[in-house]
Amino acid sequence: MEAQQAEQQQPLRELIAAGAYDVLTARLPDEHVQDIARALADFEPNMVLEVLAMLPVDERPEVFAYLSTGQQYQILNAADDDIGIPFLRALPADDRTALLESLKPEQLKEILRLLAPAEVRRAMEQLGYPEQSAGRLMNTDFVTVRPNWSLARALDHVRRQGHQGDGVNTLYVTDHRGRLQGTISLKRLVLESPDKDVMSLISGPAVTIDAGEDRSEAARTIQHYDITALPVVDVNGVLLGAVTVDDVMDVVQEEATEDFHKIGAVGALGLSLRDARPSLLYRKRVGWLVLLVFVNILSGAGIALYEATIEQVIALVFFLPLIIASGGNAGSQSATLMVRALATGDVATRDWLRLWGRELGVAIALGVTMGAAIYGVGLWRGGPEVAIVVSLSMVLVVACGSMIGMVLPMMLNRFEFDPATASAPLITSIADICGILIYFSIATAILTLPPP
Amino acid sequence: MEAQQAEQQQPLRELIAAGAYDVLTARLPDEHVQDIARALADFEPNMVLEVLAMLPVDERPEVFAYLSTGQQYQILNAADDDIGIPFLRALPADDRTALLESLKPEQLKEILRLLAPAEVRRAMEQLGYPEQSAGRLMNTDFVTVRPNWSLARALDHVRRQGHQGDGVNTLYVTDHRGRLQGTISLKRLVLESPDKDVMSLISGPAVTIDAGEDRSEAARTIQHYDITALPVVDVNGVLLGAVTVDDVMDVVQEEATEDFHKIGAVGALGLSLRDARPSLLYRKRVGWLVLLVFVNILSGAGIALYEATIEQVIALVFFLPLIIASGGNAGSQSATLMVRALATGDVATRDWLRLWGRELGVAIALGVTMGAAIYGVGLWRGGPEVAIVVSLSMVLVVACGSMIGMVLPMMLNRFEFDPATASAPLITSIADICGILIYFSIATAILTLPPP
Repeated sequence: MEAQQAEQQQPLRELIAAGAYDVLTARLPDEHVQDIARALADFEPNMVLEVLAMLPVDERPEVFAYLSTGQQYQILNAADDDIGIPFLRALPADDRTALLESLKPEQLKEILRLLAPAEVRRAMEQLGYPEQSAGRLMNTDFVTVRPNWSLARALDHVRRQGHQGDGVNTLYVTDHRGRLQGTISLKRLVLESPDKDVMSLISGPAVTIDAGEDRSEAARTIQHYDITALPVVDVNGVLLGAVTVDDVMDVVQEEATEDFHKIGAVGALGLSLRDARPSLLYRKRVGWLVLLVFVNILSGAGIALYEATIEQVIALVFFLPLIIASGGNAGSQSATLMVRALATGDVATRDWLRLWGRELGVAIALGVTMGAAIYGVGLWRGGPEVAIVVSLSMVLVVACGSMIGMVLPMMLNRFEFDPATASAPLITSIADICGILIYFSIATAILTLPPP
Repeated sequence: MEAQQAEQQQPLRELIAAGAYDVLTARLPDEHVQDIARALADFEPNMVLEVLAMLPVDERPEVFAYLSTGQQYQILNAADDDIGIPFLRALPADDRTALLESLKPEQLKEILRLLAPAEVRRAMEQLGYPEQSAGRLMNTDFVTVRPNWSLARALDHVRRQGHQGDGVNTLYVTDHRGRLQGTISLKRLVLESPDKDVMSLISGPAVTIDAGEDRSEAARTIQHYDITALPVVDVNGVLLGAVTVDDVMDVVQEEATEDFHKIGAVGALGLSLRDARPSLLYRKRVGWLVLLVFVNILSGAGIALYEATIEQVIALVFFLPLIIASGGNAGSQSATLMVRALATGDVATRDWLRLWGRELGVAIALGVTMGAAIYGVGLWRGGPEVAIVVSLSMVLVVACGSMIGMVLPMMLNRFEFDPATASAPLITSIADICGILIYFSIATAILTLPPP
């Protein structure tokens, strides 16, 4: 299915690039608006406007809504006002907010000029909520009904008002001050007897979220309560809008990407890798890399402590990368498991004692396995004494790396830092230092060499 | 909001643990079923049954539906059939499939005993689809209407049939053979004039997915088309069920977790870290660790090539961990960015040339910055010649590590392997080997020592 779509979609892009307007005019009516929007990605605004002009008037804003915010801005900038204004007005409120929040102040001014004063006020209100908040994410088109109405009256109201609401599958029951009393689904409104009243369908208090709360909290709440729309309220309980499950699906994906980047020691890009400029990529990566250079100087210092040992048994250097890499690898495994489990709410800091004990057991078992695997190589390169040093170091280094990988994210989480800051490269570097100290201490002890 | 819920929820668990049944009886009616289910997690089946007995009869199966599949099985096993059967029957079809697919064959037999023959057949049909497929994920309760019906007739049909359907927000239009003709939303059915016919509301072909397709494909399709329900069809286009947006939100999260684990060189756990037994954790981690031990022996072999150089300038060892770690760090950054971008569909293999050029530029800039940062330390530890060796190595090692981190996931993807297999520790180990060779080659060349 998707494969077929991909096949069909590739030609669409090519048709646009080739300017094959006859074929396009014939093909476009059969294409989904989302696929047309995808095919138009990266094309110049004037080209996009020409393709949009081939579509029925009512489909053009729909395609426009699925373009990236960057492309939307370019098009509004390039188009005459009589074309741009309907596009901007037809955007669902949450998409419009996403477009406006992506703009620089001078661009924002240009675009707000296209909106009516009431729309500008509404947009500015929404932009007043903190970045990444539920208030920014919510859709402000919704249909409200009163608790004392009969279902017949409510249904009649939906028939008159419903066209403006994006998510009419849920109706919001509010009192005369706009305070949320509960929600009812359109399904139940249709299925239940029309002479019941609205109040009788509300069961218990509605799950809500404050507009200022983080959008990841909105995602967690929607997942936990398995609901399709989460009402957003102000401090007085007045309904402001609703966050829907399709909005938070993107949030879940973006938050996962952010954590993914963080554990790989890359700053959150906040945009597509495809579109990122080299200067942005440089900035997002250089901080961690330079910081880690200085952390790794400590590894060098650790080695310098044992230069005398190294000079006497140069064969020890052969195993150095192996030992320190193994500690780092085990550590990044632990950190990966822990950071993700903390992010998805799978484990909590209060579980630490049980997790700590289990991790130590697993790590020792892993270390023993790896120590056994390397024993033969130690025997071959350096004789029985070196083999014992290498295997014993392996056990301790792997155990030590694993514990660092587990404990550091938990500690960060405990003190309300982001656990993903304990990136795999940081864990690796810290494990490296421990690995060097453990390895050469054991070597110095067992090989009965003079102390450094 | 969520913070308040957490406060309330903690006591609920404590009340259950303390057996404070008077307080519970008073509190439970005001609690959301999802919160009751969460509070019941990890309690013994008999304890859970006692708490469920305090709830109104119609709420008990709802709480049961939100328990983990493991706990559901224990309860069905512990309860009398007259209690267990209604629980199992009330489970939505997709949750029931999730429970059944988590069972061992002998457990499955016990549970199927509780179902009517028609239900068993339906369950076995759904279990016949491949694991992780859209067919396993779909819900098979849905309401269909015919294309030639008037909207009035369709609405009447929904009123009669809708109680059984979980996702009646979408109605499926099928012909007399059950083949899908399109979908219409309950919203439009309610809003449009009742004498229109169903066919007139269908615009273009419906987006569908084959039952055998991967569930991650279902998630991508739902995200791309921004729909709330995706019809699942067989090869003849016959409607089998529907995957809904709330189901795929869990898929998006699970797939992200899987990739997260893979890039950290941990096998997919397939279950909660909290619940994972030590032996499972050991098995999921040991493979990669032992494999990487042998990859890292190559690093040792690289060092062995240059033992003569090392013996003459022991100060070189000081910088060894630093140089090789930097290449690994830059490489895992690149791999992280690339693996995630390939997983979310942000970049495609055909973009490689542009990405390759940009990455090289960024990597050289990063390498120069890091080389400059370390130059002073080189001067201090080893004099001007060593400083040049260290800085120059840094530039090349970082560039080389970054390119490996970018190219390996793309190559795996190109040949249809999972790009996340290019885990950060693997990239780090390969970058280590390159780093050692680059560093000592440059040292041997610049310090004008005898070749190894």
